[in-house]
Amino acid sequence: MTKASPGTDPTGGRPVVPSRGALRPLGLGEVRVVDGFWATRQRVNGGATLDHGRSWMDKLGWTGNFTAARAGAGEVDRRGREFSDSEVYKLVEAMSWEVGRTASTDRDREVAELTELIALAQAPDGYLGTAFGGPGQRPRHSDLASGHELYCTGHLLQAAVARTRTGGAGPLLDIARRAADHVCDTFGPDGTWGICGHPNIEPALVELARLTGEQRYLDQAGLFVRRRGHRSLPQHHFGWAYYSDDVPVRDATVLRGHAVRALYLACGAVDVAVETGDDDLLAAVAAQFDRTLARRTHLTGGMGSRHMDEAFGEDFVLPPDRAYSETCAGVAAVMLAWRLLLATGVSRYADVIERILYNVVATAVSDDGRAFFYANTLHQRVRTVDVPTDEQQLGFGGGPRAPWFEVSCCLPNVARLLASLSAYLVTADDEGLRIHQYADADVDTRLPDGRRVALRMRTGYPDDGVVTVRVTATDGGGFPLTLRVPEWATGAVLVTPAGRRPAPPGPVTVRHAFVVGDEVRLELPLRPRFTHPDPRVDAVRGCVAVERGPVVYCAEALADEDLDTLRVDPGSLPVDVDGGVLVRARFTAPGERAWPYGPTPRRAPGAPLTGLRLLPYHRWARRGPATMRVWLPVT
Amino acid sequence: MTKASPGTDPTGGRPVVPSRGALRPLGLGEVRVVDGFWATRQRVNGGATLDHGRSWMDKLGWTGNFTAARAGAGEVDRRGREFSDSEVYKLVEAMSWEVGRTASTDRDREVAELTELIALAQAPDGYLGTAFGGPGQRPRHSDLASGHELYCTGHLLQAAVARTRTGGAGPLLDIARRAADHVCDTFGPDGTWGICGHPNIEPALVELARLTGEQRYLDQAGLFVRRRGHRSLPQHHFGWAYYSDDVPVRDATVLRGHAVRALYLACGAVDVAVETGDDDLLAAVAAQFDRTLARRTHLTGGMGSRHMDEAFGEDFVLPPDRAYSETCAGVAAVMLAWRLLLATGVSRYADVIERILYNVVATAVSDDGRAFFYANTLHQRVRTVDVPTDEQQLGFGGGPRAPWFEVSCCLPNVARLLASLSAYLVTADDEGLRIHQYADADVDTRLPDGRRVALRMRTGYPDDGVVTVRVTATDGGGFPLTLRVPEWATGAVLVTPAGRRPAPPGPVTVRHAFVVGDEVRLELPLRPRFTHPDPRVDAVRGCVAVERGPVVYCAEALADEDLDTLRVDPGSLPVDVDGGVLVRARFTAPGERAWPYGPTPRRAPGAPLTGLRLLPYHRWARRGPATMRVWLPVT
Repeated sequence: MTKASPGTDPTGGRPVVPSRGALRPLGLGEVRVVDGFWATRQRVNGGATLDHGRSWMDKLGWTGNFTAARAGAGEVDRRGREFSDSEVYKLVEAMSWEVGRTASTDRDREVAELTELIALAQAPDGYLGTAFGGPGQRPRHSDLASGHELYCTGHLLQAAVARTRTGGAGPLLDIARRAADHVCDTFGPDGTWGICGHPNIEPALVELARLTGEQRYLDQAGLFVRRRGHRSLPQHHFGWAYYSDDVPVRDATVLRGHAVRALYLACGAVDVAVETGDDDLLAAVAAQFDRTLARRTHLTGGMGSRHMDEAFGEDFVLPPDRAYSETCAGVAAVMLAWRLLLATGVSRYADVIERILYNVVATAVSDDGRAFFYANTLHQRVRTVDVPTDEQQLGFGGGPRAPWFEVSCCLPNVARLLASLSAYLVTADDEGLRIHQYADADVDTRLPDGRRVALRMRTGYPDDGVVTVRVTATDGGGFPLTLRVPEWATGAVLVTPAGRRPAPPGPVTVRHAFVVGDEVRLELPLRPRFTHPDPRVDAVRGCVAVERGPVVYCAEALADEDLDTLRVDPGSLPVDVDGGVLVRARFTAPGERAWPYGPTPRRAPGAPLTGLRLLPYHRWARRGPATMRVWLPVT
Repeated sequence: MTKASPGTDPTGGRPVVPSRGALRPLGLGEVRVVDGFWATRQRVNGGATLDHGRSWMDKLGWTGNFTAARAGAGEVDRRGREFSDSEVYKLVEAMSWEVGRTASTDRDREVAELTELIALAQAPDGYLGTAFGGPGQRPRHSDLASGHELYCTGHLLQAAVARTRTGGAGPLLDIARRAADHVCDTFGPDGTWGICGHPNIEPALVELARLTGEQRYLDQAGLFVRRRGHRSLPQHHFGWAYYSDDVPVRDATVLRGHAVRALYLACGAVDVAVETGDDDLLAAVAAQFDRTLARRTHLTGGMGSRHMDEAFGEDFVLPPDRAYSETCAGVAAVMLAWRLLLATGVSRYADVIERILYNVVATAVSDDGRAFFYANTLHQRVRTVDVPTDEQQLGFGGGPRAPWFEVSCCLPNVARLLASLSAYLVTADDEGLRIHQYADADVDTRLPDGRRVALRMRTGYPDDGVVTVRVTATDGGGFPLTLRVPEWATGAVLVTPAGRRPAPPGPVTVRHAFVVGDEVRLELPLRPRFTHPDPRVDAVRGCVAVERGPVVYCAEALADEDLDTLRVDPGSLPVDVDGGVLVRARFTAPGERAWPYGPTPRRAPGAPLTGLRLLPYHRWARRGPATMRVWLPVT
């Protein structure tokens, strides 16, 4: 790699900066979300979630662990699970992106202060981790399978990358480099042949290599990716698939095992493939993700079927009941889809990102930004409980959203994504710009040939399907502007200075010598629609879901309606009503029987069809204790 | 209770001997299974499973723990999980019933030898447990929630009851009494207000009270039952429901949480209710079990939906995929249904026992009796693996059956049930006899008024539906003979000395002055039939199952057929064919799509219907690696 002197990223900072690929991402300084759906969430994230996370980490002693480690306290005074350091790092990463987004000096000072705290715990040889190696603790790297040491280091590196790209090189980068050097010294070609039970160090090392130009970090990431899949970790109770150590990355055909582990590893593999020109590896991971999308993904874009091992199910095992769909898996899937989009330019990866953003990320966070779903079920049969106490552990989905969890990765993970979200909206391609996600956003960047272009995107999306992109600055001359027509958007229309034309799903490009004031308008049809599942998804046979644009809808009951007796008339198309979507449905309670299986199909007495109002899935469990279902049995 | 001098039970031994109730159980000496379906399994159990279990427990050091405890080895030399003592006790219980069944002197010596081993570990104050209280171990009763100490003691007591009823009072009874006295001293009215995280001590104490006449044991069991449900145990990660400590036993409406825990507790509650005349408590538990059967039980009678917490799901959450249906929950449900049958005389509890025996117990054991399912899934999507290695832990269902598990409760649990099975077939009632389960069995007992009666029951059940009961000895005079017509058996016919008459589902009674040679014949129609699920069981909507008599059938694929594309024609009734049942079906693979959800229902191309042979569910995974499904989507 080219040696570089890392400083503030002139784009304002981007989480992923591949040195090659179909698309070049724009940064936080080039794309700003100014209003609408995501601006609200970014404000809440910056104004509440980051402080909320900080106060919990202080209260629980997770930040204090760094001071205690410096004091040599060892295990006696250590608080939290073995991976609690990583939550602090993720929070620092989120705060760093927030500095990039808002230029907040308070937040900048907070990152500096947390950096000083973290620095306390770094050993002279560069090792950094508060859970191992101290008095009364297990030796460093003595439990690669479950110890999460390299996982934590990965989050440290990602925090340092964010900090450097938004604030310039500084002490956190020094800390990260020394930690990364220690990893390379320990696990390099001449070191221990080890991998971490929880992948994450892989994409982190590549990104640090991209930032610093340090070839050694990239090589180490490549080593870690190549070592995976040879059952070198101890056999896990859930099998080697749990940590993707069952089959080499290059040979696997689908993502499997623990969803977040599998997705982080895939991110690292794409990063390595891109930086080393390993097209076979890239194609392998893309095929794995494609099959995962085709067979192992919930309608919401959520990934992971199983609570027990937080894992992907087998193909088409996607029961809505107790759907795991972990919030962190949503974040990780956005990270992977984004890398594949940048590498390949294939528009449907942006479709996937959109689906996850509106139906997992937006669902996971409470309106005040201080409570979260860890898991995102698609069917809540028993009414959610009242506000949980602080002490209550709610690790199994089912609302309401909780302020904290014993394992609280979802909170800072969503926070880092939301703070950096504007970097996921627009890219450059060979000649022009591509808009992947629609929001009220201002774009100000330079084309590959150096010409400046500024755009003002305005939309009521996802409530309204009209997206207007106005050119607000240009150095003149033509360039291609590409917009994404989502897969569901049949009948979309594109209006350009040259006229009006149909826009089929996929990328649609306008080539024009734009002048200031020129507008491109995309009209996406946002009629609510029924969606039918693949017949191999046993759990939702005989059901439809309702979607409108990228948003999945659900039935929610706050009172006594038994949603499990709901039957929707598939012959009456769903229609828009104020604040939701109306379907024709009835409640048809079958009589009670002593044994739920019998010689004849059970037909419930026919109640009259009435209108049933559905609400966006991401809005559920916000009005009080509720039951809910996404998949609706048909009459 | 009446003080008694326990000796060999004149009936030959029974697991449950209530002092009151609608029915009086017959013992191993009064009912002998001589041939057919269960005789085969009893032979394999006695000839292979018991030795298999013993050799594993020796190899893994679980038996050696008792010697090591005597030597004061403490934690250093202790092997296995904290509840491994209970497996040894369960094996001793199984061997004791086997002594009752076969009068084997070898097995009798083995029980005596194991008793000497167990005795080594008993402390002077009566405490017996190898996992707590020794050097380097946690103090006794310092972890009631997870330590399983009282659970283990319960199994010790049950072993001693079995030993005493089949072999007479002896050292194992002395050991058990001293252990039970220690429990009463420690947890009695003046002792610690504690309960065990895993119920089992409750039914065990009642049975020891029944054996010995010791009121104190019954009182202690009642105390434990009353203490449960007040959240006195620490909050479990899975909630207090995990160990049924969320709601008092008397107030609960359904079984919930960890299935085996809930079922053992319910057994103890019924026992306490029966012995104390607490009809409200009895009615409460019966109602809980009835609702559990109506809403939380798989078609096979299997209980438990969830792997994660080995727990019942919510009402109607019964996905076949990863159905947990733990083998031990099957055994425990037989125990509970048997207690309720004895207490109430309600025939459908015998229906439940039959269902579980043929579809859970018979499924769990390999033909050679040396391998077991821990969990009994109803849908295997990915082919089962080849024979697992000894070291391989297979805790999650999916075949083939494994020779051992880290937690290997299923093996001795099934073994104790099979060894004592003949005690579950026939009872006396106020005047006569009731036959609950059909098998080739010889009965020789006395009526409540003291007259001797002997019966010879012969049948090809469950393959054939004709059951013949011939009177082979009688002291003369009439008595009522009651047979059970299962719920599914519409059109059954009863042929008696008085003629032929229809026999509707439920108990059917013949009152006759039987003489030797008289026959009663029950003709149960064993046509294969389609079974439809309650529409609230989301996971099997649009599916049928096939049953024949008490046996659930399944589709099994050894080769490349994709059972997930199978569609059965519900218009063509299933028919008997050699070795199975034939349905009309087609395989209709839908084309591949990048996203499994779309705007139109996916209709697969219509392949011609052909005959598909189903096999009994309990026969699956015996012919090699296979996929399998019980619930079959219809065309």
